[in-house]
Amino acid sequence: MKFNIALLQMMVYDDKIKNINNAVKIIKKASEEGAKMAILPEMFCCPYDNSYFREYGEEEGGIAYSALRKAAKDNEIYIVGGSIPELEGDMVYNTSYVFNPHGEQIGKHRKMHLFDIDVKGGQYFKESDALASGKDVTVFETEFCKVGLAICYDIRFPELSRLMVADGAKVIIVPGAFNMTTGPAHWELLFRGRALDNQVFTVGVAPARNYNSTYHSYGNSIVVSPWGNILNRMNEKEGYIIQELDLDYITKIRNELPLMNHIRNDVYSLSKFDSEK
Amino acid sequence: MKFNIALLQMMVYDDKIKNINNAVKIIKKASEEGAKMAILPEMFCCPYDNSYFREYGEEEGGIAYSALRKAAKDNEIYIVGGSIPELEGDMVYNTSYVFNPHGEQIGKHRKMHLFDIDVKGGQYFKESDALASGKDVTVFETEFCKVGLAICYDIRFPELSRLMVADGAKVIIVPGAFNMTTGPAHWELLFRGRALDNQVFTVGVAPARNYNSTYHSYGNSIVVSPWGNILNRMNEKEGYIIQELDLDYITKIRNELPLMNHIRNDVYSLSKFDSEK
Repeated sequence: MKFNIALLQMMVYDDKIKNINNAVKIIKKASEEGAKMAILPEMFCCPYDNSYFREYGEEEGGIAYSALRKAAKDNEIYIVGGSIPELEGDMVYNTSYVFNPHGEQIGKHRKMHLFDIDVKGGQYFKESDALASGKDVTVFETEFCKVGLAICYDIRFPELSRLMVADGAKVIIVPGAFNMTTGPAHWELLFRGRALDNQVFTVGVAPARNYNSTYHSYGNSIVVSPWGNILNRMNEKEGYIIQELDLDYITKIRNELPLMNHIRNDVYSLSKFDSEK
Repeated sequence: MKFNIALLQMMVYDDKIKNINNAVKIIKKASEEGAKMAILPEMFCCPYDNSYFREYGEEEGGIAYSALRKAAKDNEIYIVGGSIPELEGDMVYNTSYVFNPHGEQIGKHRKMHLFDIDVKGGQYFKESDALASGKDVTVFETEFCKVGLAICYDIRFPELSRLMVADGAKVIIVPGAFNMTTGPAHWELLFRGRALDNQVFTVGVAPARNYNSTYHSYGNSIVVSPWGNILNRMNEKEGYIIQELDLDYITKIRNELPLMNHIRNDVYSLSKFDSEK
């Protein structure tokens, strides 16, 4: 079983409607070129800055949500909607919605690990000043396979990937916006490591670098194979790539090197607590 | 707090006594050059082949064990004794012993995950045909810090590293002998990934490549920083390197990027079952 995914490394402007329209246009294009799943970057319609999240946010079913839902149906394509600031009561979440080709919502992930960093001479950013965190491990079903969904900083925690894979995920998708400190140092390493450890495809989709923005995204949207090889990778510029994922390759790798069978569940155990949602 | 470790990338011959004598010689040399901890490779005195393990094996306190113990005391150095085939009753374990500068045993790890691989057109090797597996997460105390100890294939399982770090390990040492398929593909990635995820130093020590042996070790003994950078790395040839580890750097990295504080213990939990030993 093979299918094509599109990584949409959009430029994000300080204009929500413009960003949404760009997303819809590029989704259509990717669909026409054979993509069965289009993946947007983290905060694809909102500059990545705490001061913007509430203003650009929306409740479930808002403008961005509805536009993606319609685009999924119009183009008969799965859409992993990067993320948007989701408003619920007083809270703002960093949330990714997933729609199937019928325009139905089939997944929703609220970023679980919030990114607080303070590197001397480097980056200062406290996401937890502005955002609330999710509590759910997210895996959604498609006609191809199960897909795990996490957002950006979530990729740093091996527990989350392991739990998605335990739930059957064969592909882990991570809209993310690493910065110019952590991007060059860690982006590739993390996507390769999670792919290798779990013998799944990993996919990272970042915004293009916008030098007019306060936050400079590393870009470098990436697809890694279950053997830990980079299958495709962009630079920092606006654009998109379409990449075929061959799910049979996972089976081959797992037969040859049965890591998943060698996990010592008799010695240690990773479990998740149920959330009520 | 800083201290020097020595990675002893020995050549392993099909002569147990010769290998032991070489190890003792090189430990002395490393000590004279300022190393406070000497680390031997996996199966440093036994060719890495199922057919050798029982013949070259010994019960706890045997020849290899006693030689390392004495070398530790004579040179006033910590020794992480790579690994040897340990005989206990009918069982053979792949076991690493650790001695302190007084010649006291302060650690023992039995390889927990056994390496079975069958890559088409590549490697076939079933360790579990010849070896039994350990059940204990191993962390030992030194005057510098706590140190986690695993063997080769153990490094592939993120759970084990996480548990060692939860027990306080600041350095993870892994005698290992990756092969010419998995070495080039995964050795560096795994050591960098575990270091980054857990913000600790990781150290891999391999035998030198012996083309006269049935098993060709990848070599490439490596030290990685808690930021995921390679601090030092060898090629495939016989030799040793001495590398300073600056434990304060761990504190710096963890202050700047507090990953360990962001683990969502309210959402998921990694626990180990007690073993009776």
